[in-house]
Amino acid sequence: MAADNALVPTLHNIATRLRIDSIRSTTAAGSGHPSTCCSAADIVATLFFAEMRFDPKRPQDPDNDRFVLSKGHAAPLLFAAWAEAGAFDRSELLKLRQLGSDLEGHPTPRLPFVDVATGSLGQGLCAAVGIALNARRIGSAHRTYVLLGDGESAEGSVWEAADVARHYELTSLCGIIDVNALGQSQGTALGHDMDAYARRWIAFGWQAIVVDGHDIGALLDAFERARQTTERPTMILAQTIKGKGVSFVEGLNGWHGRPLKKDEAERAIAELEGQFLAEGGGPDVAVPAIPPPPHTGARVSGGRAEMAPPAYALGDLVATREAYGTALVKLGEVDPRVVVLDADVKNSTFSEKFEKVFPGRFYQNFIAEQVMIGSAMGLASRGAIAFPSTFACFLTRAYDFIRMAAISRLNVKLAGSHAGVSIGEDGPSQMALEDLAMMRAEPNIAVLYPCDAVSAERLVAAAAAWEGPAYIRTSRPKTPVVYGPTEAFPIGGCKVLRRSAQDAATVVGAGVTVFEALKAYDELMTAGIAVRVIDLYSIQPIDEATLRQAAADTGGRIVTVEDHYPGGGIGEAVAAATSGVGTVRILAVRDIPRSGKPEELLDRFGISARHIADAVKKLL
Amino acid sequence: MAADNALVPTLHNIATRLRIDSIRSTTAAGSGHPSTCCSAADIVATLFFAEMRFDPKRPQDPDNDRFVLSKGHAAPLLFAAWAEAGAFDRSELLKLRQLGSDLEGHPTPRLPFVDVATGSLGQGLCAAVGIALNARRIGSAHRTYVLLGDGESAEGSVWEAADVARHYELTSLCGIIDVNALGQSQGTALGHDMDAYARRWIAFGWQAIVVDGHDIGALLDAFERARQTTERPTMILAQTIKGKGVSFVEGLNGWHGRPLKKDEAERAIAELEGQFLAEGGGPDVAVPAIPPPPHTGARVSGGRAEMAPPAYALGDLVATREAYGTALVKLGEVDPRVVVLDADVKNSTFSEKFEKVFPGRFYQNFIAEQVMIGSAMGLASRGAIAFPSTFACFLTRAYDFIRMAAISRLNVKLAGSHAGVSIGEDGPSQMALEDLAMMRAEPNIAVLYPCDAVSAERLVAAAAAWEGPAYIRTSRPKTPVVYGPTEAFPIGGCKVLRRSAQDAATVVGAGVTVFEALKAYDELMTAGIAVRVIDLYSIQPIDEATLRQAAADTGGRIVTVEDHYPGGGIGEAVAAATSGVGTVRILAVRDIPRSGKPEELLDRFGISARHIADAVKKLL
Repeated sequence: MAADNALVPTLHNIATRLRIDSIRSTTAAGSGHPSTCCSAADIVATLFFAEMRFDPKRPQDPDNDRFVLSKGHAAPLLFAAWAEAGAFDRSELLKLRQLGSDLEGHPTPRLPFVDVATGSLGQGLCAAVGIALNARRIGSAHRTYVLLGDGESAEGSVWEAADVARHYELTSLCGIIDVNALGQSQGTALGHDMDAYARRWIAFGWQAIVVDGHDIGALLDAFERARQTTERPTMILAQTIKGKGVSFVEGLNGWHGRPLKKDEAERAIAELEGQFLAEGGGPDVAVPAIPPPPHTGARVSGGRAEMAPPAYALGDLVATREAYGTALVKLGEVDPRVVVLDADVKNSTFSEKFEKVFPGRFYQNFIAEQVMIGSAMGLASRGAIAFPSTFACFLTRAYDFIRMAAISRLNVKLAGSHAGVSIGEDGPSQMALEDLAMMRAEPNIAVLYPCDAVSAERLVAAAAAWEGPAYIRTSRPKTPVVYGPTEAFPIGGCKVLRRSAQDAATVVGAGVTVFEALKAYDELMTAGIAVRVIDLYSIQPIDEATLRQAAADTGGRIVTVEDHYPGGGIGEAVAAATSGVGTVRILAVRDIPRSGKPEELLDRFGISARHIADAVKKLL
Repeated sequence: MAADNALVPTLHNIATRLRIDSIRSTTAAGSGHPSTCCSAADIVATLFFAEMRFDPKRPQDPDNDRFVLSKGHAAPLLFAAWAEAGAFDRSELLKLRQLGSDLEGHPTPRLPFVDVATGSLGQGLCAAVGIALNARRIGSAHRTYVLLGDGESAEGSVWEAADVARHYELTSLCGIIDVNALGQSQGTALGHDMDAYARRWIAFGWQAIVVDGHDIGALLDAFERARQTTERPTMILAQTIKGKGVSFVEGLNGWHGRPLKKDEAERAIAELEGQFLAEGGGPDVAVPAIPPPPHTGARVSGGRAEMAPPAYALGDLVATREAYGTALVKLGEVDPRVVVLDADVKNSTFSEKFEKVFPGRFYQNFIAEQVMIGSAMGLASRGAIAFPSTFACFLTRAYDFIRMAAISRLNVKLAGSHAGVSIGEDGPSQMALEDLAMMRAEPNIAVLYPCDAVSAERLVAAAAAWEGPAYIRTSRPKTPVVYGPTEAFPIGGCKVLRRSAQDAATVVGAGVTVFEALKAYDELMTAGIAVRVIDLYSIQPIDEATLRQAAADTGGRIVTVEDHYPGGGIGEAVAAATSGVGTVRILAVRDIPRSGKPEELLDRFGISARHIADAVKKLL
């Protein structure tokens, strides 16, 4: 047995201190989850002080082993472990959950030792897959650990991650499930049926190791077996007791998310203090974390050069989704941090162009959008600029991940193709008509929507350079190139495509509706009506100044037109931006659409040139 | 062997006709997925004409066996099967994907034989779980069948459904996976490794049966085994060849989502016509569908009486989430169609109140939001009024399901608790700040947001009565009751809480911010400024008339205040509704929040009474 059993009493004592700290901090905060900290304390103590190699003073060292707390509600335990390791002073723990402290209710990357925010269950393993893939990308031998709750393994995203980890043979990935058998509101579905857990992980191609999660020697052995495995990722299934160490909490329902009252906490701490072992050095022996080994091999540099400019002639017919693929390749050529992720639609989104040139930086997730985004989050948290793409409508599948990516302020550059009714015959299930609302709702996501190939390529570059998450909406149909190759598309800007001193109204379009707006312009001109036409390629941030000026110049009359439902879309963004100076008529898809030809649908659902011209005339 | 082998040649001939029809219709449409129809044709022919009991002329008969086409892109095959069964004339098939036809690119409930829209992969099994649960609710012995693609079993939602089906021992549920080993853009992760598939389903507690999906005798046997199983749901794993029957398509990549050209279609049909067998009656023998047995036992009636009125005194402190739970019980007492679904947070959302009274109509999904919503869709598609509830932020996990529920126009009444920064210390991962945008983006979802217990109860009743999906946003903190027990809250209305002839501005709040608005009112009154205060309890549809009148009455000055991010929220809805008459200052949470006390956070993120008063003063 490889485990160094001399360490066991010391690790036990550390675990006991982590329990005490978790109880103290949650009682001080008046809220939090001490019982779930207690079930996982032996696991975390063993992992942090006998298994993981990391420098607690340099938590972002690229060769540190990584740890993701997927069961984010055990945050007090995580914080206690980092305090124990010397990352900060233990007294900080008592500021848990206070407005001035970065020790929040659930971990966020405000803390230097947290890679991705957790607290929405089932996401940590997905992020850990990305972190493990990133280790390969940067040529680091670090291992990636992730601690899950048992209840959260009901989340489908966990099984998406399981499959991708198997597919990529991520032997450096080691999960631990804290099987304490109690969920928030009742017992978990599988209780302590450890065999049932093991069967599932084995069936998904993992090594599964069942241990007593309070037996530190067994945990040490399990971690060693995981490290020695050269074929597959490992899931350690640790049978534990919720509230372990506190007699009146152990294994009882009703203690989830409930701090101990002051007197309860005192009793609990007295009990725990009685559990310190004298062997191995006594309760106060500090165990230094094991430092990471020196890095060998070339490190991928983070530099970036200007990517090659667009190479189209005006009038060329190119779908923006195809230009997206072209841009990815150009970007990949100048920036080694760029990685691309797919969910089995690479031939529709054109991300396959990138795969052909950079297969080592392209990750196939098959039909599993949650792990695609989660893995992108993990990659981005470790320095990659990650472009996950699929049909825009299927990004709704991963909205909870997108939300958490926004909280984590990660460089995840989402791209959604096949937006709107303009996809045509495939019908409503394939049409993204709520994606702009979904993305705009996150305050730090740049929402970009090119209408032609030139703006598509430029906006891919702009998204890559943007600090934080971004979204690029591309379209299925081919559209004519309207911009010259040197045209700039700063995020937060827009393009005035038609203007005159006589403009009677402003028409704001984006993507495919820019061309409907231009057709309406021509139609209105024949009737002697001049209108200003704006391509709102940056939906968020929005160019409020130009929009308000246009409103002022055109009698306040604004017509917006979008291949999207009205709620949260372009029209509302413009109405808010021009409030007080503009009267906005919003043309949008106002009912559930259906199959048909693209042109038929644009007209049927009220967003074709004819409807724009009518709306302008009605405003006059 | 129980299979009636005399049927085999006839079923083979039906399958061949379904293949021919699928090719003809997609070639006529110029788009679609004939190759995936060919792989599943033998399965569907066997299922429809030798296994399922249903009346093709009464597709909504409650005792019909149900069929969900989870791999919705095989829609032409589904349509061909119903035409073959006599539901409509075969000539309709050639109108596939045309604007005038309900035979869309993917199935939608516009068709009387479709329960839920499919086409977003991984949802069908979730809906089928709900349909199977509903059979128990209505006391029907019907079976539920669902056909999945192999690629889609990578979606985590499939495994969420697998677990819930096991938990509820849904023996009447039978899935079939069409394992053709080819995805859209490349081979699937598991290819034809049938053992790997079987291991996974067995590990999740299902009966797994591996068959040759083109061997009709074997399929008949498998369906019989499934029917005879009394312990667990069954997954039939059918090894197939994509494009089966057409030599130049069979098993080849590159044919996904590609119709055959005219000459290719002619060659393919000629090949298929050569495959008709003379035995069993020749190519044209029609096999009538097996009718459902007469219903035995009591049918649950759909009647509904008025539910008991709210029983609170003005000023009582009650959280709207708690009133939600109270209302569910009252509703359940008068309407047997009401069912409630949870994802292990019933003690936080208070849906546990319903469970205690109606355990048979309460479905626990553990921590798996996608199957909770998908199962609610299935239940609603068969006549239930389904209330799935969880923390509002975790509804983002199921946005793709919510989107499809909107397309399907189902009676799914979503409820999200713990909205906004007012939850306090748990931090951003637990705060819903994009849920209003997410729900408003679907044009047919009623979006409701009570501020007190009375409006909460009334809006639960209103949501139940609304035709189609609805969303109720509840809050964590206790708030005072401000409405009397007889107050009515029609969807599409709002409440003017303060008004005078001197109102200098309008303040629009909802939920917790109503009370900030009332505090600001008092504060402004001491400074001699009267404002109108509106409780916008119905965010969608919105009371445009009252808002525009308020704008007109108060100099166009409007301040909106919401515990939500600005994009797609209340402010933008009001800005759009008052465009041209109002100048709207939007107070919303404009940055990623953090942990802290509720009152601290309302103030820190700019939505407290102080900020409202300041905004009003700035507008004057």
